[in-house]
Amino acid sequence: MKINSNYSNLQKSYLFARISEEVKAHKARNPGREVISLGIGDVTLPLAPAVVTAMKEAVCEMGEAATFRGYGEYEGELFLRQAVCGHYARKGVELDEGEVFVSDGSKSDAGNILDIFSADNTVLIPDPVYPVYVDTNIMAGRKIVYMDGNEGNGFLPLPDGDVRADIIYLCSPNNPTGAVYSKEELEKWVGYAMENGAVILFDSAYEAFVRDEGMPTSIFQVPGARECAIEFCSLSKTAGFTGTRCGYTVVPHGLERGGEALNRLWMRRQSTKFNGVAYIVQRGAEAVFSGEGMAQAKGNIDYYMGNAKLVTDTLSALGIWHTGGCNSPYAWFKCPGGMASWDFFGRLLAEANVVGTPGAGFGANGEGFFRLSAFGSRENVAEAMRRFKRFAEAIEVH
Amino acid sequence: MKINSNYSNLQKSYLFARISEEVKAHKARNPGREVISLGIGDVTLPLAPAVVTAMKEAVCEMGEAATFRGYGEYEGELFLRQAVCGHYARKGVELDEGEVFVSDGSKSDAGNILDIFSADNTVLIPDPVYPVYVDTNIMAGRKIVYMDGNEGNGFLPLPDGDVRADIIYLCSPNNPTGAVYSKEELEKWVGYAMENGAVILFDSAYEAFVRDEGMPTSIFQVPGARECAIEFCSLSKTAGFTGTRCGYTVVPHGLERGGEALNRLWMRRQSTKFNGVAYIVQRGAEAVFSGEGMAQAKGNIDYYMGNAKLVTDTLSALGIWHTGGCNSPYAWFKCPGGMASWDFFGRLLAEANVVGTPGAGFGANGEGFFRLSAFGSRENVAEAMRRFKRFAEAIEVH
Repeated sequence: MKINSNYSNLQKSYLFARISEEVKAHKARNPGREVISLGIGDVTLPLAPAVVTAMKEAVCEMGEAATFRGYGEYEGELFLRQAVCGHYARKGVELDEGEVFVSDGSKSDAGNILDIFSADNTVLIPDPVYPVYVDTNIMAGRKIVYMDGNEGNGFLPLPDGDVRADIIYLCSPNNPTGAVYSKEELEKWVGYAMENGAVILFDSAYEAFVRDEGMPTSIFQVPGARECAIEFCSLSKTAGFTGTRCGYTVVPHGLERGGEALNRLWMRRQSTKFNGVAYIVQRGAEAVFSGEGMAQAKGNIDYYMGNAKLVTDTLSALGIWHTGGCNSPYAWFKCPGGMASWDFFGRLLAEANVVGTPGAGFGANGEGFFRLSAFGSRENVAEAMRRFKRFAEAIEVH
Repeated sequence: MKINSNYSNLQKSYLFARISEEVKAHKARNPGREVISLGIGDVTLPLAPAVVTAMKEAVCEMGEAATFRGYGEYEGELFLRQAVCGHYARKGVELDEGEVFVSDGSKSDAGNILDIFSADNTVLIPDPVYPVYVDTNIMAGRKIVYMDGNEGNGFLPLPDGDVRADIIYLCSPNNPTGAVYSKEELEKWVGYAMENGAVILFDSAYEAFVRDEGMPTSIFQVPGARECAIEFCSLSKTAGFTGTRCGYTVVPHGLERGGEALNRLWMRRQSTKFNGVAYIVQRGAEAVFSGEGMAQAKGNIDYYMGNAKLVTDTLSALGIWHTGGCNSPYAWFKCPGGMASWDFFGRLLAEANVVGTPGAGFGANGEGFFRLSAFGSRENVAEAMRRFKRFAEAIEVH
């Protein structure tokens, strides 16, 4: 019996699991203090009324013999896949239902999609990056090449013709940096992928936060992407589904590699290792895409964007270099006083009782940077920013 | 870019996907006929009232700011893991909550658990078998050794000291044969695993159907299993959760291989590639384990066992050799007239409008056998059995 030895190449624990442990320890040591978390990107506003109504109805259906549902379609219920297609149509992207796969979240899919690719492929990953892209490829023993995000390129790396890669991860609006690729920049990535026969894995989990007209919210808004990209999206951030679990993945029919349609391979993977998402949750997800649901979801995102503005206004007032915070719930900034990320994390927690995410947790290029998320109540974010300001000013003085 | 070439070694489609297509085609050709399915093992009775009540309350909680829940624990909510521990305690198995992992179903976990093992291991799989065990290992390129289930051993193969294996799949009550291992037989498997340093992956999805006193419902009722086994269970069959999606996996703390605790490796896998199960669903699952929920779930299973009795009574009256149908919702029998499985499937569908599952779909040793499941309404099962009797008698006469 051999275990998967690639696991020994992983960091001991998943980034957010480590943060969660450190926060628990801090609270145990300091029972009286009120800790405010702008750390993990977790939503805080309740589900929209349209979603609640739809799920209540679905629970009732499941309790009656005439309307009870057993196993659903492996790829998700048709009503939800049609609603997703409608959502794409409104942004000018035509899909058919057979290109949409419903899942319990884009984190699961972003990891599981790797099953259909050989372990021999070279993977191109931005640094800093959402740790799941790195860890899932380390687990499979794939060769990883990093592309540098930094202050110079605004944390939006572009293709380097000298680098060969088979699988490319892009996330826009970006987690953790909040930076957003323009259409022209994505065109360069599609061109690179076509030239190299590569596949782009595009994470659009934060698409609902894009407010600037003309900024792309889907890779499929770029010509040619249907032949070289897979897109992951989720209702976690769009509609507060982090604890309700529903996402979707688009694998276009035109996407073939090695003579195989990736849509067919993914269907084979999903039908073998997955049994669909709870019917109740799929009805809730369908309601998100209704006119009423979309309006309510947008209202919640407006609220979070108001929080984000408090964060970026504070950073600007302090003269701290940053990205994100508009078109994104994340603000990414240079640690004041030239501090290292984990040092800043520890001191911000210990001295200001505010939790954020150390940039170094997202990769070597994240060292010296820090992420704050805009989820939480307005009051908490405002209070966290007051504490942050005092803390940052004290550092700069020393 | 290379795709995972192991996929080309798979059957073109997952067994139940193929059956579903054939049934669709039959219905399209014969629009007037009423087709009864005893094919896929899908429950038909609605969710128990205790579950419906709990999920309605949870939906309301998710709609209110004060009680809303975002990301839960990767391994499942503590309240549900405690309820699972309570369920095990009632069968004499002491677990702690850290040994229980909640998921969207045991099909997902049975496939995903393989991530933590090297692709170099040799896997021992019974034939016939639930196709997921085979397909997920083919996808990973693992060497598979089969152990023969047949009429001679009642489809309950026992260890062969001459065969070396690292990973062993056991499912009891068995899918597809309905056969159940005794405690003495499981002791032999635990002994074999200990001797070989192997890990048993034990699927107890049908444990709630065991009615004979003394028949094991968990591998952990066997001494030593905590050092060599992982158990998968699900509420799909126990409580009609096939469309609601909740299962759990037990990885005991004592289980180590290659100097690594498998519990820790599985936690690392789950926290990286999974984000937990919908809070609403976990509250429904918790209610299954309450006194009221358990009584209601047992009522449903009693109903299905009444159906199973109709099936086995028909088979016995026709003098057809069979296993299962007691302690299991599946009856497994020899095709009348010595027919091949898929021929029998096609003719039973075309001539009697009854859907079952061809034994050959579960492996070479399933050829000449057939599975009927006991889910469905009493009326439908009774009508299916009337049709089956006429059909089988006509075959025997020819």
